[in-house]
Amino acid sequence: MTPIGIVGFRGYSGAELLTILSRHPRVEPILLEHRESDDGPGILDHAGPRRIAYSPDAVRAEGLAAVFLATPADVSMELTPALLEAGAKVIDLSGAFRLGTTATYQQWYKEPHTQPGLLAEAVYGLPEFCRPRIRGARLVANPGCYPTAANLAIRPLVEAGVVVREAGIVCDAKSGVSGAGRKPSLKTSFCEVTENFCAYSILDHRHVPEILRTSGLEESELSFTAQLLPLDRGILETIYFRATGVGSASDLMDIYRRKFAAEPFVRLYAPGHVPDLHAVARTNFCDIGVAYDAPTGRAVVIAAIDNLGKGAAGQAVQNMNLALGYAETAGLL
Amino acid sequence: MTPIGIVGFRGYSGAELLTILSRHPRVEPILLEHRESDDGPGILDHAGPRRIAYSPDAVRAEGLAAVFLATPADVSMELTPALLEAGAKVIDLSGAFRLGTTATYQQWYKEPHTQPGLLAEAVYGLPEFCRPRIRGARLVANPGCYPTAANLAIRPLVEAGVVVREAGIVCDAKSGVSGAGRKPSLKTSFCEVTENFCAYSILDHRHVPEILRTSGLEESELSFTAQLLPLDRGILETIYFRATGVGSASDLMDIYRRKFAAEPFVRLYAPGHVPDLHAVARTNFCDIGVAYDAPTGRAVVIAAIDNLGKGAAGQAVQNMNLALGYAETAGLL
Amino acid sequence: MTPIGIVGFRGYSGAELLTILSRHPRVEPILLEHRESDDGPGILDHAGPRRIAYSPDAVRAEGLAAVFLATPADVSMELTPALLEAGAKVIDLSGAFRLGTTATYQQWYKEPHTQPGLLAEAVYGLPEFCRPRIRGARLVANPGCYPTAANLAIRPLVEAGVVVREAGIVCDAKSGVSGAGRKPSLKTSFCEVTENFCAYSILDHRHVPEILRTSGLEESELSFTAQLLPLDRGILETIYFRATGVGSASDLMDIYRRKFAAEPFVRLYAPGHVPDLHAVARTNFCDIGVAYDAPTGRAVVIAAIDNLGKGAAGQAVQNMNLALGYAETAGLL
Amino acid sequence: MTPIGIVGFRGYSGAELLTILSRHPRVEPILLEHRESDDGPGILDHAGPRRIAYSPDAVRAEGLAAVFLATPADVSMELTPALLEAGAKVIDLSGAFRLGTTATYQQWYKEPHTQPGLLAEAVYGLPEFCRPRIRGARLVANPGCYPTAANLAIRPLVEAGVVVREAGIVCDAKSGVSGAGRKPSLKTSFCEVTENFCAYSILDHRHVPEILRTSGLEESELSFTAQLLPLDRGILETIYFRATGVGSASDLMDIYRRKFAAEPFVRLYAPGHVPDLHAVARTNFCDIGVAYDAPTGRAVVIAAIDNLGKGAAGQAVQNMNLALGYAETAGLL
Repeated sequence: MTPIGIVGFRGYSGAELLTILSRHPRVEPILLEHRESDDGPGILDHAGPRRIAYSPDAVRAEGLAAVFLATPADVSMELTPALLEAGAKVIDLSGAFRLGTTATYQQWYKEPHTQPGLLAEAVYGLPEFCRPRIRGARLVANPGCYPTAANLAIRPLVEAGVVVREAGIVCDAKSGVSGAGRKPSLKTSFCEVTENFCAYSILDHRHVPEILRTSGLEESELSFTAQLLPLDRGILETIYFRATGVGSASDLMDIYRRKFAAEPFVRLYAPGHVPDLHAVARTNFCDIGVAYDAPTGRAVVIAAIDNLGKGAAGQAVQNMNLALGYAETAGLL
Repeated sequence: MTPIGIVGFRGYSGAELLTILSRHPRVEPILLEHRESDDGPGILDHAGPRRIAYSPDAVRAEGLAAVFLATPADVSMELTPALLEAGAKVIDLSGAFRLGTTATYQQWYKEPHTQPGLLAEAVYGLPEFCRPRIRGARLVANPGCYPTAANLAIRPLVEAGVVVREAGIVCDAKSGVSGAGRKPSLKTSFCEVTENFCAYSILDHRHVPEILRTSGLEESELSFTAQLLPLDRGILETIYFRATGVGSASDLMDIYRRKFAAEPFVRLYAPGHVPDLHAVARTNFCDIGVAYDAPTGRAVVIAAIDNLGKGAAGQAVQNMNLALGYAETAGLL
Repeated sequence: MTPIGIVGFRGYSGAELLTILSRHPRVEPILLEHRESDDGPGILDHAGPRRIAYSPDAVRAEGLAAVFLATPADVSMELTPALLEAGAKVIDLSGAFRLGTTATYQQWYKEPHTQPGLLAEAVYGLPEFCRPRIRGARLVANPGCYPTAANLAIRPLVEAGVVVREAGIVCDAKSGVSGAGRKPSLKTSFCEVTENFCAYSILDHRHVPEILRTSGLEESELSFTAQLLPLDRGILETIYFRATGVGSASDLMDIYRRKFAAEPFVRLYAPGHVPDLHAVARTNFCDIGVAYDAPTGRAVVIAAIDNLGKGAAGQAVQNMNLALGYAETAGLL
Repeated sequence: MTPIGIVGFRGYSGAELLTILSRHPRVEPILLEHRESDDGPGILDHAGPRRIAYSPDAVRAEGLAAVFLATPADVSMELTPALLEAGAKVIDLSGAFRLGTTATYQQWYKEPHTQPGLLAEAVYGLPEFCRPRIRGARLVANPGCYPTAANLAIRPLVEAGVVVREAGIVCDAKSGVSGAGRKPSLKTSFCEVTENFCAYSILDHRHVPEILRTSGLEESELSFTAQLLPLDRGILETIYFRATGVGSASDLMDIYRRKFAAEPFVRLYAPGHVPDLHAVARTNFCDIGVAYDAPTGRAVVIAAIDNLGKGAAGQAVQNMNLALGYAETAGLL
């Protein structure tokens, strides 16, 4: 079993990485303690995963083939150079290496990018569109949760030329609370979230540039709103556009079938069916369904993922599999 | 205290009617048993509201000034003629009398309309737009939950001429489960709903004609999707359009301020703020906020109501107040 | 309308006080800003309640007849002397004045009591047992949420002599999350609470001395465990004991009927029925039901309250009504 | 891969069996359609598990080594004889074969037992206490969810002689809604369950005889109440008793450590820690923690399981592993 490190294992993405890697046939997860310490739940006599203090030397000494960074962007920028030097591949789950330029990063993350060289080197880890570059990559920028679903749903439509661009695309996105991370805040307190639903970062979410970059849309064409669902896990995006050159819902779905025919982690629905969040919970699937009114060209696409699965830890393991040369689906089906 | 009847008091809207009317300074709610019987929760020694068997004779004998029908559309069509004849005003919470023609009714409700004369007489009970006709009306068709929020949010924009009509309007609507009624079904079972979110009746909801009729939109211009939130009460609609002739979010909000300046149950939010469901829970308010990107014309309006409040029982009491000549806000603030 | 102040109005109990007092026929709530400031939800053009900066001078100048302290115990101890001197009655919702001695306070709250004189003067605000002393009191210690339900359920049994004392009483208590207050913490974060249930302060909760003091039990006789439900509001306590001298469930219930015959806020259930949390949500009721197996003497009592209602703000208003000489149920039914 | 059948795969236990068996290294799950038909979620191009019509001939023809019955008790009694004759082992998740006599069955399940011979043959599938008999058994009665946790928590205490029997044991049990099955009912409708908590079958639950039979308690000694949590999965039981001959919480825990030292699916907690439902969700673990007040002998034991895991499907797979001679933990860790 190849040893693999996890930094940030107490967060929700980190914990999900541990769950997935514990079932992986080729690797052994090792928890790397970095600015964290607790005593766990107090379970007696049952061995958990190995835990060691984080340091580049430890990474080298343990021979970690890859390290997952489930850390804030600034920590990821700080740790990545030494990890790469220590011989580990890095799968970074933060936003540190997702955007194309340091200027875009600064614009949306409100802080300077400290690793422009690595930003240029990093491969965007959306396997359905970037698989060849991910194979063997040293540094993979794992996509954001909202952009994963949005790009898988929108880019095939843009490529097929069926979107009436001047009417724009609406992406009304809803996420479970785990997407906001584990740090306590009033906005994610139980009594504020339960029996509630709210929008935030309307037309102004930092995931927008990631969607534009991969989908092929212009900023003026995309209206994106993020919203908080009173549930733990899951993202569902309801995408609206005006279609041209499409005769039926089946035609629309056929665009996706051609694009994703060989994809193990994209599932498509027959017209009349759309995915819900239960369909994708605790999986690495992105499920897509469509509705279409041919006379008026009004089209709706529903895309669903688990924000901790295909939206974070699941996709990160998929990227690790590609980067290290394992079967792409290992540990994920 | 004027006696007022409730048919369908065991459903969620009926129970909410009882809650509201119990606080009303001018009326006494009386439960009318129609095809229902149970023994209640078994509370000893505490008097509840009066309950009598439903019959037109009983309605006349008790001198009920008004009767709320929180019943399915077919039951409402069956009971209304005799209630009117018995001298009671009728506030109907079903879809029986909301649409303009029997043909539209048949198209969306999949059954013939049995009371075309009353359909022609019924007044649509959205006070913000139809107040004069509701005053003194015999039969009020209480609006659907989704159309209430949609019409309050969309019609002022259409009237102001700021919507780029050819780009269409998207209304992405989310509702709590009580909107589906109290009858048990797999779709509303706890384990199916919790930790889930799903779309239904995509582009094809029976509330669409009600939105078109009042908002002034054409069918081809509106993309409406209904979705089920894992919570009890509340509707939030995220409405997207392209604006023209609007310089800022404040300009956009000013359209609503002019329209709703004197409205007791519409609350508007300063730019930078939008309502969530907690803001309107157990109230008769419709809360509206906006976001706007002036350079591109992308506009978002968020409208929130309690589906059992302004979306059903609250608005029904508001209509009763108007129909019977009470203060419009009595029992509702 | 008599002006009444609320300190701590942003917490859940404070917000509930505002909701209840806004419906009260005799008083006008005024928010007293103390170590708090925010801008509210940004609602335009709708007047909310009056807000003024807290100071004893302001309390005197405004002529506040009473002030609710929905504050931590140390803040309550700090503010109470000046409030009393300013001529306001004080209804304190913290634990500051609930226990009989400074030593007991220090033992359970881990800090010295700074107002021993006021501790001696304070009246325990459980009207069903202490009504005569609450009438006209200057300082009322509003009971804890768990003790309110526990004492109403247990004390009648102890007084009636039907508890086999040597077998002990078990009080298995479950509370909604709002009982933990509004301050963000990991334990009350949505993702930690949803789909979860956990016990805390097992056999060691600071509400235990409050239960012992009023119920008449000895510490060795009571096994009390607090547990966190994944919901917002409500406390349900399942109480187990061995009964003696009781022939049937009806006999057991009759003990409560005799004790609480005239109580407006205690509701009793016929044998075969027990309350759930929906029965008491957003009310000031304490609902009680029983089950009994006569051959073995095994008895179960279920008591339910809304922790923000009878467990906090509702009971506080009941106490204010008694202290100021209003009808005890004003604003509460 | 050995083929294994599942009857009742659309229920929650059946679906969980499919999830677990899909990860099992030795078996292939096959869905057996019995009085059920639907079209699934409409996913295109992705193969699911094999599905065939149920019949004893099909079971024989497919060479199914075992069949899980996730069916009501009457269906289990009806199907079991033919399945055994067809050469399959039967793991029955209903209550059909759990009780010791046909009379006890009739008393609690209110219908006659139609297979007294098989009732006598069936092995009770609680591996921690009955492992030798489960190995190689033809017919395993998978334990009820509540009794699994209760028996694992109580029997070691009874065997160790530390329970003061005349004071009785209280088992206050709380379950998620999936324990009530998938058939729609008002009691399990979302709006009735969310923000609610209620007790049912107080002192009178059909799982009581199963607890008595295995734990060693007399009926008069056990007070058991079942309660419904507003969550999907999980059972937590809070167990109260008076201890004798125990000096500390560690002493109490040592009773469990000695009993369960070699058990792969029982986890014990250090004093000061107790399990919550998140600790056991989607696992086959039963987690146990204790609290103890030595001076008074008051003891509390907390036992937690996933009602669909160790409480149903997980334990059923553990039993299949034993019955078919696989590693006991195969597919379960």
